[in-house]
Amino acid sequence: AAAAEVAPSAGQGVGVDVQLISEVNVENSVFVERNFTAAEIAYCSKSSSPQSSFAGRWAAKEAVVKAVSSLASGAPVWTKGSAAPLAEIEVLREEGKAPVVVFHGDAKAAVEKAGVKNVKITISHSGSYAVAMAIAE
Amino acid sequence: AAAAEVAPSAGQGVGVDVQLISEVNVENSVFVERNFTAAEIAYCSKSSSPQSSFAGRWAAKEAVVKAVSSLASGAPVWTKGSAAPLAEIEVLREEGKAPVVVFHGDAKAAVEKAGVKNVKITISHSGSYAVAMAIAE
Amino acid sequence: AAAAEVAPSAGQGVGVDVQLISEVNVENSVFVERNFTAAEIAYCSKSSSPQSSFAGRWAAKEAVVKAVSSLASGAPVWTKGSAAPLAEIEVLREEGKAPVVVFHGDAKAAVEKAGVKNVKITISHSGSYAVAMAIAE
Repeated sequence: AAAAEVAPSAGQGVGVDVQLISEVNVENSVFVERNFTAAEIAYCSKSSSPQSSFAGRWAAKEAVVKAVSSLASGAPVWTKGSAAPLAEIEVLREEGKAPVVVFHGDAKAAVEKAGVKNVKITISHSGSYAVAMAIAE
Repeated sequence: AAAAEVAPSAGQGVGVDVQLISEVNVENSVFVERNFTAAEIAYCSKSSSPQSSFAGRWAAKEAVVKAVSSLASGAPVWTKGSAAPLAEIEVLREEGKAPVVVFHGDAKAAVEKAGVKNVKITISHSGSYAVAMAIAE
Repeated sequence: AAAAEVAPSAGQGVGVDVQLISEVNVENSVFVERNFTAAEIAYCSKSSSPQSSFAGRWAAKEAVVKAVSSLASGAPVWTKGSAAPLAEIEVLREEGKAPVVVFHGDAKAAVEKAGVKNVKITISHSGSYAVAMAIAE
């Protein structure tokens, strides 16, 4: 009765994801092609640690899903859950600049329906883990 | 003399917490009942990994304390420090939706006094760690 | 063609950093003095775990660089990359309060040029890792 519930529909959505790098199965080409675009695969494959690079992007995609779902009130945005291909949430970056998110297909439609104007992401990895964060407005 | 100090009282507060999952002592019922509500205990106990679930909520509560303290200028909001029971910061979620924070008792009073209108949280765990983040406005 | 690119120049910048604590070489005095101020070295050295404390501050500095670069559109803010001494991004805290960022020298100039009004940071460590997050506005 004395609870002060914080409104779930306010101005920002936040998402965080931590990922054990070794768990991201980069040897499974079906998994990789379902969840990463050609540009992402090219970028990660030529990085100094492809496994870490794929894991960081995976974490970023998961963080974006959480941030958009956290922004939207009512029904969850990505109702397809784990069945949705994460390649529709593309993480791009130019050398030396912050990564940028680009939405495609159903993800694009869901984000527009949710009224999302902007999503910022950030990615890090060290040792055995990758961590990513997203803010949706 | 040349320092540009960033105002600590500006519009947002942020909090992050990382937690080694094995360190959260879920076998200690005094600890559990002090820091988790009946609804949280029920939710975590029936999850696929109760230990990870409790650790994630613990990290979220710590992140909320940091975010609210980071928003407030001047005196810290939770002056009781580690003596304050974290059950007063309740983390609830409906299946498939983003988690929501509900404040009770002293925590509710402290948050209202600090002028906090909204707190968003997000939780993740993988491998041996849970990570949570909170933004207070 | 169907991509909805999210504008990289919007109101907030975010940065996250995870750091394997053991990798921060606190025994290397050249590294320490290049990247930490006298006040930071004094604070970390007397903490219960100096190694963890230095690692947390290191993660915070990296998160700040990412957050400011994420806020700024166009050219990256810290073009000197890994050659820039992180001592110019000072992390200070009073007992029991949230940590605060103070910029010096080239970092101060870069942040002012980027139009950054406020940077909030938060730091955590547990087990073998430190995690920090920053938001720039």
